[in-house]
Amino acid sequence: MYELVNLYPNGGKEMLHFFHSLFPLSKPVMVYVLENTRYIKVTKGKFIRSPLDNTETIYFIVKGLMRGFIRDEGVEITTWINEENNVVGSIRNLGLDVDTEEYIQALEDTLLIAISRTCLDELYDRYPETNIIGRKTLEMYYREAEERAYLCRLPSAEKRYKRLAQTRKGLIDRVRLKYLASYLGMKKETLCRIRKKFKAL
Amino acid sequence: MYELVNLYPNGGKEMLHFFHSLFPLSKPVMVYVLENTRYIKVTKGKFIRSPLDNTETIYFIVKGLMRGFIRDEGVEITTWINEENNVVGSIRNLGLDVDTEEYIQALEDTLLIAISRTCLDELYDRYPETNIIGRKTLEMYYREAEERAYLCRLPSAEKRYKRLAQTRKGLIDRVRLKYLASYLGMKKETLCRIRKKFKAL
Repeated sequence: MYELVNLYPNGGKEMLHFFHSLFPLSKPVMVYVLENTRYIKVTKGKFIRSPLDNTETIYFIVKGLMRGFIRDEGVEITTWINEENNVVGSIRNLGLDVDTEEYIQALEDTLLIAISRTCLDELYDRYPETNIIGRKTLEMYYREAEERAYLCRLPSAEKRYKRLAQTRKGLIDRVRLKYLASYLGMKKETLCRIRKKFKAL
Repeated sequence: MYELVNLYPNGGKEMLHFFHSLFPLSKPVMVYVLENTRYIKVTKGKFIRSPLDNTETIYFIVKGLMRGFIRDEGVEITTWINEENNVVGSIRNLGLDVDTEEYIQALEDTLLIAISRTCLDELYDRYPETNIIGRKTLEMYYREAEERAYLCRLPSAEKRYKRLAQTRKGLIDRVRLKYLASYLGMKKETLCRIRKKFKAL
């Protein structure tokens, strides 16, 4: 594995550990993954995807914080926020209108491992057992997407904040107010007030 | 297949066709699926899942219309609506509070095929290729869940209606106003007004 370790300063072990926890990875799979993925460093505030770049890529966050957002007539709508040890990627929107095209932005200096869709599809073809990992990963993120769809349907701003504080505690003090407010579908001032109130309790 | 045809009046072919379109099903898989799933008829308005019944089951809608909803302090929040040729099931909520437990209700007289989680897991173990189908199905529904999370974050009621009319045209005239309004996060009166306006165009 020496060369791979050189190729990957830390042997890409965070990502391999993540997948291995879902289903034991065979050595050929590990080698293929490490040889066909690459590290990407993204500075805080920079984008890894914009509507101009439509290549479909999946990213494993080694360290840092990312958000996905969509511009609706100039207004940014944050659709997801994720930290290290998560797989993120572009929502394949239904291509109905340009307004729904997605941006992905780093909210902190972030280290990612990029896996192209082509690589992923080849992995699924060559090593059928990786479909088990893909299926389990998707089961996990499907539940999270459902949680996001539920969260934003809660009628009161306070309930939405409370729900997030229960489910994603780590984000509350880590994400900038403006992004958290947009994700929670409330004004920055409202979030500010609610947060003070809960901290005071 | 004669016995199976007897077991399944129509050989369960709608469901097999759905999965087969994602990945060719081997005969043993078809036989296993047909022998381990059953038809369920649900009368309009009836529930197939309530917080009292927590068995995890996946349903294929052969004919009809279903919705998932959650009670938040007595108020029903419709989180999804699906028609025939869709796989539906319970959102595995994070079990943080009873308020978030999910109900599944038939909005029309509905014919379902029920697949228990146990059967599904055994299918994944015995026939590894079914993980490919599971993975592809989840990719499809993950995108839909993302779409739901995006839809309800659109700032204006009119935009939400317009988006639904573009993405799920079939639901607009099929689903009762009160459920559609709850799904779109708006008052029944607002939906009524917007719908009239768009029909007039």
